[in-house]
Amino acid sequence: MDTRARFKKKKAAPKVQNETARVIYERLGDEVLTTPARVERRGTTPCLFGKGGTCCRVCNMGPCQVVEGVEELRGVCGASAATVVARNFGRMVAGGASAHSDHGRQVAIDFYETVHGETPFEVKDKRKLRVVAQALGVNPDQEEQALLQEMAEAALRVFNQQEGEIPLLNRAPEKRKQLWRELGVWPRGVDREVVELLHRTTIGVDQDHRNIFMACARTALADGWGGSMIATEFQDLLFGNPGPIKARVNIGLSVIREDMVNVAVHGHEPVLAEALAIAASDPEIVEEAKKVGAKGVNLAGICCTGNEVLMRRGIPVAGSFLQQEAAIATGALEAVVVDVQCIMQNVAEIARHFHTAVITTNPRARMEGAIHIEFDARKALECAKQILREAIARFPKRDKSRVDIPDHSVDVVVGFSHETILYMLGGRFRASYKPLNENIINGKILGVAAIVGCDNFRVDEEVHVELAKELIANNVLVLTTGCAATGLGRAGLLRPEAAELAGDSLREVLEAVGCPPVLHMGSCVDNSRILIAATEMVNTGGLGEDISDLPAVGCAPQWMSEKAITIGQYFVASGATVVFGPDFPTLKSQVATDFLFHEMERIFGAGWRVARKAGEFAAIMIDHIQAKRKALGIDKPKPRVLYDMAMRRALESPKVTSPFHGLGCFGPVSLRVSPEEEKKAA
Amino acid sequence: MDTRARFKKKKAAPKVQNETARVIYERLGDEVLTTPARVERRGTTPCLFGKGGTCCRVCNMGPCQVVEGVEELRGVCGASAATVVARNFGRMVAGGASAHSDHGRQVAIDFYETVHGETPFEVKDKRKLRVVAQALGVNPDQEEQALLQEMAEAALRVFNQQEGEIPLLNRAPEKRKQLWRELGVWPRGVDREVVELLHRTTIGVDQDHRNIFMACARTALADGWGGSMIATEFQDLLFGNPGPIKARVNIGLSVIREDMVNVAVHGHEPVLAEALAIAASDPEIVEEAKKVGAKGVNLAGICCTGNEVLMRRGIPVAGSFLQQEAAIATGALEAVVVDVQCIMQNVAEIARHFHTAVITTNPRARMEGAIHIEFDARKALECAKQILREAIARFPKRDKSRVDIPDHSVDVVVGFSHETILYMLGGRFRASYKPLNENIINGKILGVAAIVGCDNFRVDEEVHVELAKELIANNVLVLTTGCAATGLGRAGLLRPEAAELAGDSLREVLEAVGCPPVLHMGSCVDNSRILIAATEMVNTGGLGEDISDLPAVGCAPQWMSEKAITIGQYFVASGATVVFGPDFPTLKSQVATDFLFHEMERIFGAGWRVARKAGEFAAIMIDHIQAKRKALGIDKPKPRVLYDMAMRRALESPKVTSPFHGLGCFGPVSLRVSPEEEKKAA
Repeated sequence: MDTRARFKKKKAAPKVQNETARVIYERLGDEVLTTPARVERRGTTPCLFGKGGTCCRVCNMGPCQVVEGVEELRGVCGASAATVVARNFGRMVAGGASAHSDHGRQVAIDFYETVHGETPFEVKDKRKLRVVAQALGVNPDQEEQALLQEMAEAALRVFNQQEGEIPLLNRAPEKRKQLWRELGVWPRGVDREVVELLHRTTIGVDQDHRNIFMACARTALADGWGGSMIATEFQDLLFGNPGPIKARVNIGLSVIREDMVNVAVHGHEPVLAEALAIAASDPEIVEEAKKVGAKGVNLAGICCTGNEVLMRRGIPVAGSFLQQEAAIATGALEAVVVDVQCIMQNVAEIARHFHTAVITTNPRARMEGAIHIEFDARKALECAKQILREAIARFPKRDKSRVDIPDHSVDVVVGFSHETILYMLGGRFRASYKPLNENIINGKILGVAAIVGCDNFRVDEEVHVELAKELIANNVLVLTTGCAATGLGRAGLLRPEAAELAGDSLREVLEAVGCPPVLHMGSCVDNSRILIAATEMVNTGGLGEDISDLPAVGCAPQWMSEKAITIGQYFVASGATVVFGPDFPTLKSQVATDFLFHEMERIFGAGWRVARKAGEFAAIMIDHIQAKRKALGIDKPKPRVLYDMAMRRALESPKVTSPFHGLGCFGPVSLRVSPEEEKKAA
Repeated sequence: MDTRARFKKKKAAPKVQNETARVIYERLGDEVLTTPARVERRGTTPCLFGKGGTCCRVCNMGPCQVVEGVEELRGVCGASAATVVARNFGRMVAGGASAHSDHGRQVAIDFYETVHGETPFEVKDKRKLRVVAQALGVNPDQEEQALLQEMAEAALRVFNQQEGEIPLLNRAPEKRKQLWRELGVWPRGVDREVVELLHRTTIGVDQDHRNIFMACARTALADGWGGSMIATEFQDLLFGNPGPIKARVNIGLSVIREDMVNVAVHGHEPVLAEALAIAASDPEIVEEAKKVGAKGVNLAGICCTGNEVLMRRGIPVAGSFLQQEAAIATGALEAVVVDVQCIMQNVAEIARHFHTAVITTNPRARMEGAIHIEFDARKALECAKQILREAIARFPKRDKSRVDIPDHSVDVVVGFSHETILYMLGGRFRASYKPLNENIINGKILGVAAIVGCDNFRVDEEVHVELAKELIANNVLVLTTGCAATGLGRAGLLRPEAAELAGDSLREVLEAVGCPPVLHMGSCVDNSRILIAATEMVNTGGLGEDISDLPAVGCAPQWMSEKAITIGQYFVASGATVVFGPDFPTLKSQVATDFLFHEMERIFGAGWRVARKAGEFAAIMIDHIQAKRKALGIDKPKPRVLYDMAMRRALESPKVTSPFHGLGCFGPVSLRVSPEEEKKAA
């Protein structure tokens, strides 16, 4: 019997974590091979050496499957399990840093071209221009055009700087900066760090797992406080700083429109989606859409591109990574327009069964079976129109009998950039993190947890959701980014009304401010916002002197991309403990794992943890927060009395003035409603 | 029974490719676990998915073992076998380019510091200063100190240049340059290319194997004509351009001295070895060595550091990659001093059983069980002396009863840089590649083959040697670098007397010039010399208009390091077909392999091939050379008559003037004898 036939026979209804996707897949015939079906039908579990980090492939004497503690089963060259695991981990960090930074670099290039008048964009939001300038070491007190150009150059240097410290890490707490300098992990430019880390992980170079992991820390810091932070800050400058906005998340009739040409934008770099958003309301395009019988062109986001346009424009998000196939399988998408990262090759396979065009737009990311229309920011609108025309032309081919859009979309309030949080919590008259710190000190808020990272088809449980519910019930304020944020949105946790699920004291705080218990801070590069928010909390005072003192913790319960590992490593090196799951790529070496989990704790004041189920995550995270509270002396249930004079003094005279102060970059925050919502209301 | 005990029982006398190592290992007890023993006792063959390139580990939904042609066995995300194979190949290219380029960058930094007076070194050999300046786009007609500084900066830019063409590719034939521009593969700086390639090979980015392979070509070209070429040229400037020199290769009594403190230098960057060489003859150090009963300090090279100091100083080479453990197991090494690349972790294991210190010197490469003495070029001599003192202190601990140095070393004549070949062949009065081209055209030399690359413990046959013998017997002139060169040296093929093994017509040419049939051109970064030599052959005329027209071919029959894959890819993208073995990391995807083997041939005029045994290599390579001769119309056995007027005219008036001409950078070549040999003669 041939292999193919044998596999066909094995077919069974696959388990699907995501309910919306499950409903849509049910309708599909056998011939459409979705990812959950492939997970089921592959019939094999992942190789344990690969999974646990002890498969070494860096030279052609291998692959060597290494067993820790068995001398004969080191790598052929003698590489220990710890060396092999550290190398593999290093390559992940390098991969993740490269992805984020290549994204960040593109934003810096777009910014450079924009300030030189080469794109149709403009620097849309100048409120934090001078704050960012200062963080980059650029003198903010100069004529604006000169300032913009100097900032563009400074941003580009973050990538190719060969020697010396890159500037943005200067934003971190003083104590942390001193530590980084002592440890020698303050990075040079991102490119330099990535290339060196790759070199160190080739055959016969760095063979001390500790040395490799420290290099991983340096490279990851170059991502978090470098490449990713450039992406975040310059996207905010170019396309607007996110502020609270009401919108919709998940597949539904107001997200994927039966009467419009539906174009999903999927990937990571917002410049493409911004251009498409402008082009979609261009009268010429609307007219063309009408000619084929549609009311216009409707955009819906997928993955982090979704988060970017959701946060800034209130464009609805059709789905996270986990739902990219399901969106197509509604039968109502004319096109999926993609740029880079997390676009599954199976998208082309699913689209093949419908009238949907997969349109690749980036020279760095092509796909067999896709149409390639290259997007150039300098001709952004022309390119965007060409892409939309391709979609419009598909509209008449939509087979209405195959359209099935389960109406699962949910209201969300999103757009909690670090600047927004500042103003949401502080209000018009004292824009600072002081109210947050006060509420942590007085125990109303137990601590802060970040739930970030990917979706993963190998996970059955909606870990993000179950975990978030448990955390907020325990009065832990939750921050979120990336695909985790979309999942939490689907579950309704991004609505202010979800405050009712919070513990009593957290609910009290949330209701006073009117914000949801889970704050959506953006896409995966926007984890850099969390670094800044954490620093603000330290600088505000009363919660210790470093990020590692905060009653705060991060997690990525369904991590999938190498980017997540890089993010985890820069959080830990910045002093924030993180919990990853459902597994971890070093577990086959106890020696290497001990370094990441325990030795890094000693060195950086934070370490890695692993958990599988939501309950385990919650237990570890709440324990961690409570331990930090104890270390700060705020562990006992203290009403107002315990908020003592020393703490009050610390809060009154923070050691470091927030860079946001004095520059007056942000005004008070009010909730916006997306144009889409406005139209519906009208 | 515990796993460890089970493995002990399985022990058998391992197969050892290298005779010298075999003799030494025989003496070792069971407790010393050598690499051949580990290969034998691991009991498993490498995983076929990993070996064939279809194990995908770029995200945490995997590892996915992919089977081409079985839809269910694509990656979970839908990645095809071709995508997965191309990604893995891309990561190898990125790893190899990073290794070479991190080496090249360090040389550029050393050069920069040297010309700014910050190191004890000087620019030793200025003969090709202006040639290199011109190649870097630096105006050679300026005051020397300014020129040196500008060159240092230009060299550093090759790594971090963000946009536009890096300069050294301008050295290539005109037709090739045009092709690179048309294909969009002329690289930007090395770092940019590496980071982009890493990004493209993360989950869900580039999913068209062709697009990835073209990116691999661009990144590899940035190595060959960028990072590696900078390493070669600036090492030549700093430490001297190699010229023919007589020396010794392989373990033997004149290489590892019974009466001296023996220090092996192992790794890749010559600056460390140069400093050790200077320090070893420092009277202070000699005196200290005498105090412990030794006659002085003796250096012996291993791996590519060995090639570097062999080529420039005639310091003997104890062994290639394959012999690094054997050198220690002679019992007569006081120290193995290492920097980066190809240093097996097992070196520490072997050294543990002797009095030998393993001394790591580079912050990028540490090893458990080693002593770390950081080498800083700015304090080169102090560092070198500190290292040698560590070795001297070990001399009294040498256990003479355990010393066993099989006297296997062999005479070699090495130092055939591309400039040397020019003068060797042309002689005093017409320094050019014209005589080489003439002899190829008239059929005395059938063609040129490069045998380069690593040793591999998984190969039983001395493929390099058997292959070289077959090639020269067929009148093919052989060039060699890296560990292959050391192997060919051990076999006696680097002696002029080996001309007797050549076919009649090749022998005639060799004997006239007095050079060996196999020309040692240097270390693995020195494959860049082969690119320049090939270009010189094209520019000299009569053999077509591009590297792809030449009756020339390369091979790496025992490739091991990722660097080899990068080298192969830049050769192919430069128009030189290469044959790799004993296996190839794409073979589990026919689609991907077809691209590399056939489609690249159509695009670049050169492709990849795979072979296992020496005979297969020889057949493919000779066939290739003959096909190229046929295309040039020089395939029929043609004595002098056939060397026709058109060809003569082409040779008389080459289209491109060699950059070496007119600048008069090199004088006639004469054979040097290493100081060591001189001492022995005295």
